[in-house]
Amino acid sequence: MPPRNVVIVGATGAVGQEFLKVLEQREFPVKNLKLCASAKSKGKTMKFRGETLRVEELKAESFKGQEIGLFSAGSGVSKEFAWIAAKAGCIVVDNTSAWRMDPRVPLVVPEVNPKAIARHEGVIANPNCSTIGMVVVLKPLHDKARIRRVVVTTFQSVSGAGAKAVEECIEETRAVLAGKEYKRAIFPHQIAFNCIPQIGQKKETFGKDGYTDEETKMIHETKKIMEDDTIAVAPTCVRVPVLRGHSESVNIETAKPLTPERAREILGSSSGVRVVDDPSRMAYPLATDVAGHDECYVGRIRRDPTVDNGLHLWIVSDNIRKGAALNAVQIAEML
Amino acid sequence: MPPRNVVIVGATGAVGQEFLKVLEQREFPVKNLKLCASAKSKGKTMKFRGETLRVEELKAESFKGQEIGLFSAGSGVSKEFAWIAAKAGCIVVDNTSAWRMDPRVPLVVPEVNPKAIARHEGVIANPNCSTIGMVVVLKPLHDKARIRRVVVTTFQSVSGAGAKAVEECIEETRAVLAGKEYKRAIFPHQIAFNCIPQIGQKKETFGKDGYTDEETKMIHETKKIMEDDTIAVAPTCVRVPVLRGHSESVNIETAKPLTPERAREILGSSSGVRVVDDPSRMAYPLATDVAGHDECYVGRIRRDPTVDNGLHLWIVSDNIRKGAALNAVQIAEML
Repeated sequence: MPPRNVVIVGATGAVGQEFLKVLEQREFPVKNLKLCASAKSKGKTMKFRGETLRVEELKAESFKGQEIGLFSAGSGVSKEFAWIAAKAGCIVVDNTSAWRMDPRVPLVVPEVNPKAIARHEGVIANPNCSTIGMVVVLKPLHDKARIRRVVVTTFQSVSGAGAKAVEECIEETRAVLAGKEYKRAIFPHQIAFNCIPQIGQKKETFGKDGYTDEETKMIHETKKIMEDDTIAVAPTCVRVPVLRGHSESVNIETAKPLTPERAREILGSSSGVRVVDDPSRMAYPLATDVAGHDECYVGRIRRDPTVDNGLHLWIVSDNIRKGAALNAVQIAEML
Repeated sequence: MPPRNVVIVGATGAVGQEFLKVLEQREFPVKNLKLCASAKSKGKTMKFRGETLRVEELKAESFKGQEIGLFSAGSGVSKEFAWIAAKAGCIVVDNTSAWRMDPRVPLVVPEVNPKAIARHEGVIANPNCSTIGMVVVLKPLHDKARIRRVVVTTFQSVSGAGAKAVEECIEETRAVLAGKEYKRAIFPHQIAFNCIPQIGQKKETFGKDGYTDEETKMIHETKKIMEDDTIAVAPTCVRVPVLRGHSESVNIETAKPLTPERAREILGSSSGVRVVDDPSRMAYPLATDVAGHDECYVGRIRRDPTVDNGLHLWIVSDNIRKGAALNAVQIAEML
C-alpha cells in the first residue's frame, strides 16, 4: 500500500491515543497524520514517530486531501461527519455505533468477514468492543460446528467508557480505601469494588425489553459480522472495576458435536486467537495479562452437559486495542 | 426456644465474626456462648452482647454440654469434629463443604427446604454461598413454572475466600495504585483490577471435566436443596475485586411460560427475596448496596427470546451474611 494521508477524529481519547500507538507499532504507511478533536482539545500536542503533532479542531473542511479517517469521538460526531468525510474522498473506519447497522456500511472484523470490506461506500464500521472479542473466537467454531445459541455475560473494563472513566475508577478506589467521599461524574453507581449490570451511563440505554444498548448491539452485531441471522445471542453486560480488558463468560450450543479438545485444536490454529487453557497450571486468560496484546484469548473450555453440544468458554481481549484501535487499523490495512 | 449453649467453631474468621453479629442482632436465645478456633487464635478476645469472650483452642472435649455448634473453620476441621460434636449432643450447623452431599446430612436454605431439617442425624449443612443466593430466588419461580436449565456466571467477592483474602485484595489494590510490587499469599493471580475465572486457590480445585469445585458444588447443591434432580445447572464461577456480596448473571429456562412481569410478582411476595428492578431509575441490585442485608436481591429481569420460556435475572446477596452466617443461624432457629 502506498503511504496515505490519515486523519484521526477523537485523537485525545482513550482509543485515539491507542490509534497513534497501533499505527506506529504496525508501521502503517502514513504519509501525513492529522489529529482532530473537539474545540476544547485544540492545540494539545501528541507524539507520533518522534514528531510532535498539534491537535486541530474538527470541522467539515478537515477531510480535504485525507484518504483514511479513523473515527472515535462518539456517535454524535460520527453521525455528523462520517459521510462528509466519505464524500471528500476520505474512507472512514468508524469506531462508534453510529453506522454499524446501516445496510450501506460493512461491519468488519478482519479475521471474521474480511470480504465485507469490498462492499463499502465510503464508511466502514468497527464493531462494539465486547462483540469483537467474542466473534473472533466464535467464528472458527461456527465454521466447523455451526453455533445455534450464545449465552454471554461480560465483565467489561472501565476503559470501555473512556479515559475519564478510568480516572474515575482509580480516584474512586483511592477514596474508598481512604474512607473518603467521592463525587462521581461518569458511572451511574460506585464502580470501585463493585459490579454494575449496566453498560452506558444513562437510563436511556435501557430499551423497552429491559436490554441495554450494549446488550442489543451484541445481539445484532454478532449476526451481521458472522453473516448469519440464525445465531441467537442472549447477553448480559456488566461493568467491573478492571482498568483494561474485557472478559466474557460464553456458553454456546452448536448444531454439530464439538468436544473441548476439538475446539482447542480449531482455535489453536485460528488467526487472531490465542488459547490459554491449562487448569493444571491455573492458566486461563486474565484481563491483566491480555492488556496490550493483539489476540483474543480463550480458555476454560469445557463441555456443558446440560444441553446438546454445549460448551463453556472464557474469552478475554483488550477492548481498547483489538476491541477498537487495532481492529480499525487492521481494516484500514486491507483497503 | 429455650436458651441454648452455643459454640462457634472458627470464631475469628470472616464468617465467625459475622456469626456473633447475627446472633446478637437476631436476639438468638444464647445461654452461654463458647468461641473456638485454632491454637494460634487461642486467647484472642471478641465482644458479644457487651461481654468480652476469650477464644479457646478447639478440642474434642470442646463440645461437652454444648447444644448448638456453628462451624466455619474449613472443611478439614468439620470433617474431623462435626460428628464428634454431634455424638456429644451438640447439633452442628456446618458452613463448610465437608458434609453437604452426605445422604445423612440435610442441606438447608430455610426459605427453600425447611422441612429437610427434621431429617438430621446431628449434622446439618449450610450450602455454598453462591448457591444460597441463587436458590432463594429460583425456588419460588421453580414452584410456579418448573426450571429446566440454569446457565449462571458468578461475580464472587473476595470475602468468600476469607478475611485474609479481603486484606490481600485491599493491599494489592493499594500497591497497584502506587505502582509498587505486591507479594500475594492467597489468590493464584492478581485480583486487584482483575477478574479470575477460578474460585479456590489451588490447581486441585479443577476436576477432570475442567470444572472447579465451586462450579461442581453449584450443580449438585442446587439439586439437593431444590429437591429436584432434573434441574440442570451450567455454572462459571469468577472471582472479582469486590469486597463483599456475590453477584450472579442467571439465565433460566422454565417448563411453563413465565413473563418478567409474573416473575417480578412471584418474587415480590417471596420470603427472603427483594426485587430491585427499575431501569428508568437505573435501579438494580449492587454488591455495595446489598452488603450487610439479609435478603437475596434480584433485578434486570428480562425475557430471553432465544429459547422457549427464557428469562434473565441478576441476583446479588451478601455472601458472608445470607451466604453463610445468617443462613446457619436461621437453621439453628428452626431446631
